[in-house]
Amino acid sequence: MRAYNFCAGPAALPTAVLEKAQQELTNWQGKGLSIMEMSHRSDDFVAVAEKAEADLRTLLAIPENYKVLFLQGGASLQFSAIPLNLLGKNSKADYINTGIWSEKAFKEAKRYGEINVIDAVTTVDAKMAIADQSAWNLSNDVAYVHYADNETIGGIQFAGIPNANAPLVCDYSSSILSAPLDVSKFGVIYAGAQKNIGPAGLTIVIVRDDLLDQSKAEIPSILKYADQAKNGSMVNTPATYSWYLSGLVFEWLLEQGGVDAMHQINLQKANLLYGYIDQSGFYQNPIAKANRSIMNVPFTLADEKLEKTFLVEAEKRNLLNLAGHRSVGGMRASIYNAVPLVGVEALVEFMQGFAQQYG
Amino acid sequence: MRAYNFCAGPAALPTAVLEKAQQELTNWQGKGLSIMEMSHRSDDFVAVAEKAEADLRTLLAIPENYKVLFLQGGASLQFSAIPLNLLGKNSKADYINTGIWSEKAFKEAKRYGEINVIDAVTTVDAKMAIADQSAWNLSNDVAYVHYADNETIGGIQFAGIPNANAPLVCDYSSSILSAPLDVSKFGVIYAGAQKNIGPAGLTIVIVRDDLLDQSKAEIPSILKYADQAKNGSMVNTPATYSWYLSGLVFEWLLEQGGVDAMHQINLQKANLLYGYIDQSGFYQNPIAKANRSIMNVPFTLADEKLEKTFLVEAEKRNLLNLAGHRSVGGMRASIYNAVPLVGVEALVEFMQGFAQQYG
Repeated sequence: MRAYNFCAGPAALPTAVLEKAQQELTNWQGKGLSIMEMSHRSDDFVAVAEKAEADLRTLLAIPENYKVLFLQGGASLQFSAIPLNLLGKNSKADYINTGIWSEKAFKEAKRYGEINVIDAVTTVDAKMAIADQSAWNLSNDVAYVHYADNETIGGIQFAGIPNANAPLVCDYSSSILSAPLDVSKFGVIYAGAQKNIGPAGLTIVIVRDDLLDQSKAEIPSILKYADQAKNGSMVNTPATYSWYLSGLVFEWLLEQGGVDAMHQINLQKANLLYGYIDQSGFYQNPIAKANRSIMNVPFTLADEKLEKTFLVEAEKRNLLNLAGHRSVGGMRASIYNAVPLVGVEALVEFMQGFAQQYG
Repeated sequence: MRAYNFCAGPAALPTAVLEKAQQELTNWQGKGLSIMEMSHRSDDFVAVAEKAEADLRTLLAIPENYKVLFLQGGASLQFSAIPLNLLGKNSKADYINTGIWSEKAFKEAKRYGEINVIDAVTTVDAKMAIADQSAWNLSNDVAYVHYADNETIGGIQFAGIPNANAPLVCDYSSSILSAPLDVSKFGVIYAGAQKNIGPAGLTIVIVRDDLLDQSKAEIPSILKYADQAKNGSMVNTPATYSWYLSGLVFEWLLEQGGVDAMHQINLQKANLLYGYIDQSGFYQNPIAKANRSIMNVPFTLADEKLEKTFLVEAEKRNLLNLAGHRSVGGMRASIYNAVPLVGVEALVEFMQGFAQQYG
């Protein structure tokens, strides 16, 4: 029996996707070998790779003047790759800081350029919120403005896309494909696969054509967007099996009705969970309503000594991986696309019972 | 039915490994989720990761003063990572050039240091060979000496480990685990997984402790061996599923009797194939006997116009992916650990019949 998996990443994948992968693992479409045993340059694999890209383009309505790259190394390697690709002509960038992941990004960027950090987290009615953009001190002359749409650990998310005079660069690792997204507003969108896309080890980069000519001299060749774009992400052997699995996830998303349909379900899931937390009197979420993540829901119990019991009891009901990030503690339910509404319903039902028993 | 897969990489994996992975793909050891849906920091995954490392250490008898890293980006990203990790104190290195992959390595290294290239390929009796080390012009004052044990495309391999006054750094991508290996003779050994280890998207780096303190300032943090070593290759989320699959391959290798046993089988396979090619009068291999790769066997037909027919006929007999690398043409049979002796026997039998019919 499959459990409900609330892990922040590597995270739940759709059961239907895993079953399809399982069925063809040793013998892909009767070819006598696994897709992971095929050359990345074989006609069969190239067809799989191209379909995955085409489906992702459909899902996010990616305009033609954007390249889609299937790379390795996670979003964390992009923390270096972004400045190395974009600061070759103008070495200045603005970084909006809303939590642990945006901080990691600007710390790495500072090694490669002149980085202006804008601390955007503020407090509204004793809850954490993202300050209105009018309060930000954006520069006038930067190569780009970087932010993280959704802070996976903090559970704080932008309510919309900021405005900037420079290309927006956004870490969408934990929110990509959870809702419609106007790609045309961005210079670069990047995302580690292991939340809403596929298995860990794949990183998607969506980059606007005109930004491909401004890399720094010291960039490792494999990280260079221009080269990867010219070579269909095959400057060297890509993570073929992860690419294939991501393609299966994209197919599944299209079958569910695409990101509009997923967004409606994700809102239902988030509203159910936050709604219960707010009226429970036992659980607390620290984020102001306008900036609550629809993917990662951190919460605390009335008494933190109950945390271990909560996790043990949850696991008995097949509700897995609800511990918060080791850096912040507490609880966290990650409710990505692959976590179904019934999973969140089961979680809320359990939380109600637990509060009744221990509250 | 599974075919015999002679692909150079991503390459054949042992059928028993794929079947085990298939069986537990959707529900790993009854835990209710796939291993690829688990946090890399979960007890379950950490146990899998640590066992994989321990088994690899057993297989290669890796001394305690070496760290084993499970990274991403392929050997090609290591072409940058090697100089970025090792040229921080002394910016000079020697690179032995024996073909396309060692050339890629030194071209990238030249972007980060003063690289002395030693062209080591020579001709013996009209065959390509690696020149005796006495003919190399090694430097006296370099941070390291780099070479590629086995050239996957050229099919040329070192007959032994060279001597050097500086740490040896070796690309073992296509020959690691094919034979015993004295790790203590090296500073760094690295290998992309997709030949003899596991699926593409994982890179193994074995690095001696005392080399962890000489990185260059501009190195992207994720590429820094010292940081990855300190964090058990989890500075960020590693390629968990590839790591797990590699662990299954290591278990399988131990079950087969380890690298000594594999080496004996690999020699049998290589001797059978080269032996037939040499006496066929129809097929040709361009490499001198002492430097023939036991993993990648390039060969040509008496008439290159027959190549397409050869590939079509081979495929009909479930002998797949025998085309040479697009840069050199001809044929190539990659006979990694996962290609069984019966596969090579079937190939030789087919080659005999083909030569009879078309010769």
